[in-house]
Amino acid sequence: MPVRPADIALAHRLADAAGEVIRQHFRRGFDVELKEDRSPVTIADRQAEAAMRRLLDAECPGDGVLGEEHGEKAGVTGRRWVLDPIDGTRSFTAGRAIFGTLIALVEDGWPVLGIIDQPVQKERWIGVAGQPTLLNGAPARTRACAALDGAIVATTSPHLFAEGDVPHFLALVAAASGGNPRQGPVYGGDCYNYGLLASGHLDIVCESGLMLHDFAALVPVVEGASGRMCDWNGDPLTADSAGHVLAIGDPARVDDVLEALRATVHDHDH
Amino acid sequence: MPVRPADIALAHRLADAAGEVIRQHFRRGFDVELKEDRSPVTIADRQAEAAMRRLLDAECPGDGVLGEEHGEKAGVTGRRWVLDPIDGTRSFTAGRAIFGTLIALVEDGWPVLGIIDQPVQKERWIGVAGQPTLLNGAPARTRACAALDGAIVATTSPHLFAEGDVPHFLALVAAASGGNPRQGPVYGGDCYNYGLLASGHLDIVCESGLMLHDFAALVPVVEGASGRMCDWNGDPLTADSAGHVLAIGDPARVDDVLEALRATVHDHDH
Repeated sequence: MPVRPADIALAHRLADAAGEVIRQHFRRGFDVELKEDRSPVTIADRQAEAAMRRLLDAECPGDGVLGEEHGEKAGVTGRRWVLDPIDGTRSFTAGRAIFGTLIALVEDGWPVLGIIDQPVQKERWIGVAGQPTLLNGAPARTRACAALDGAIVATTSPHLFAEGDVPHFLALVAAASGGNPRQGPVYGGDCYNYGLLASGHLDIVCESGLMLHDFAALVPVVEGASGRMCDWNGDPLTADSAGHVLAIGDPARVDDVLEALRATVHDHDH
Repeated sequence: MPVRPADIALAHRLADAAGEVIRQHFRRGFDVELKEDRSPVTIADRQAEAAMRRLLDAECPGDGVLGEEHGEKAGVTGRRWVLDPIDGTRSFTAGRAIFGTLIALVEDGWPVLGIIDQPVQKERWIGVAGQPTLLNGAPARTRACAALDGAIVATTSPHLFAEGDVPHFLALVAAASGGNPRQGPVYGGDCYNYGLLASGHLDIVCESGLMLHDFAALVPVVEGASGRMCDWNGDPLTADSAGHVLAIGDPARVDDVLEALRATVHDHDH
């Protein structure tokens, strides 16, 4: 069933509401707390998610809501909104406008709508099942990538990887750089990298340790821009993918990427 | 001798000229070449530096010029302009507006004026010896950092580090994060991180492998904002510092940072 225009409009309003809160706090003084998993959180994360939840409670009280900061609310409609008010809190706290608000609408377990919103630079990618991805209203499309060697690979931080995953990631980096260590990946960026991939500015994003709220919104954005999202085995992403997330701009490179990831390179091999 | 207002005005015009070129190329199609050291370069790097050199040739033909892309021009005045048209070419090629144009005026071997200019976000930090650092005309100042544990540490990429330096860097990261690996550094950002430090959004930038054109402009910006720049031994930065660059927002933390860097932590210790 196609996504209803009313849901698309609501998703935009959610992003507007979060962005308004986030811009009020960006680069102003705020405390940074550490959550149980030791990841950082601020008043901006909490207030932005609360603003989105208020809208959802008012507009579609029967839908489920899963948010990074305020947890799960069960629904009765089979629909679930998955929210990450600030994906990239570390960049946010450091004053770098390369974080984003993530909003996904999940129906029957599959994300049919996704938004990546950068509220300071005012860049908003929206992907809707069956429709081309838009960046600020204009179609976005991934770029061709003729060979893995030379591809731009991005990732947020190797410190976020699950144990044992870094050597596989480094094997991918080595394959993309002709083995030249100075041609490393582009670091930092969180969800923003996936938007840039959707717009054809980089070729591959490879991460480990992501949660459902980190990647649900990315899938419609990347796939609606003709890219491919999958786990490190090439399978569709699910909550059970152990956070092994791959975005590949040119689907012709999927097999090369998966093959590269099967090898391992250790830091001290460089 | 204080920096002349005419030189400050000229430095702004250099940044304007580079920014005009860079904005024309940002997120447009361009080829990425690899230089001899395998770092990337684009037409935007080359044209932006050429635009600055044309201005310098016209306005102060006797001054020396050292640019990342077009090399050294000897001068006769004892003054030298040190230019890096795009510091963070990798971020530039990926469409991320967290690179910068670096402009330094070096007199008697010491940078007396520095600019970090982000031409897309239109953020310009200028530091002038004896004057407070300005961000878009408003005073910028580093923030206090009560303890190393909890400090935000930034660096561009561990792949740029000279051999053997990463374990020392990881020791600093461990000390800043209470030993919690998920509290890693903020990655990516190049010169932009130093501007953010000057404005009090992060606490420490630690890098290895930087060249004179990478750091000359940073010194007046950071020090004019009450921060400290030095090498990994606490000594003033020179072309012989082997690129071991430290920026520390709160001078009270310098000794803690130097002590932390003397230790080593290996990736597999995590």
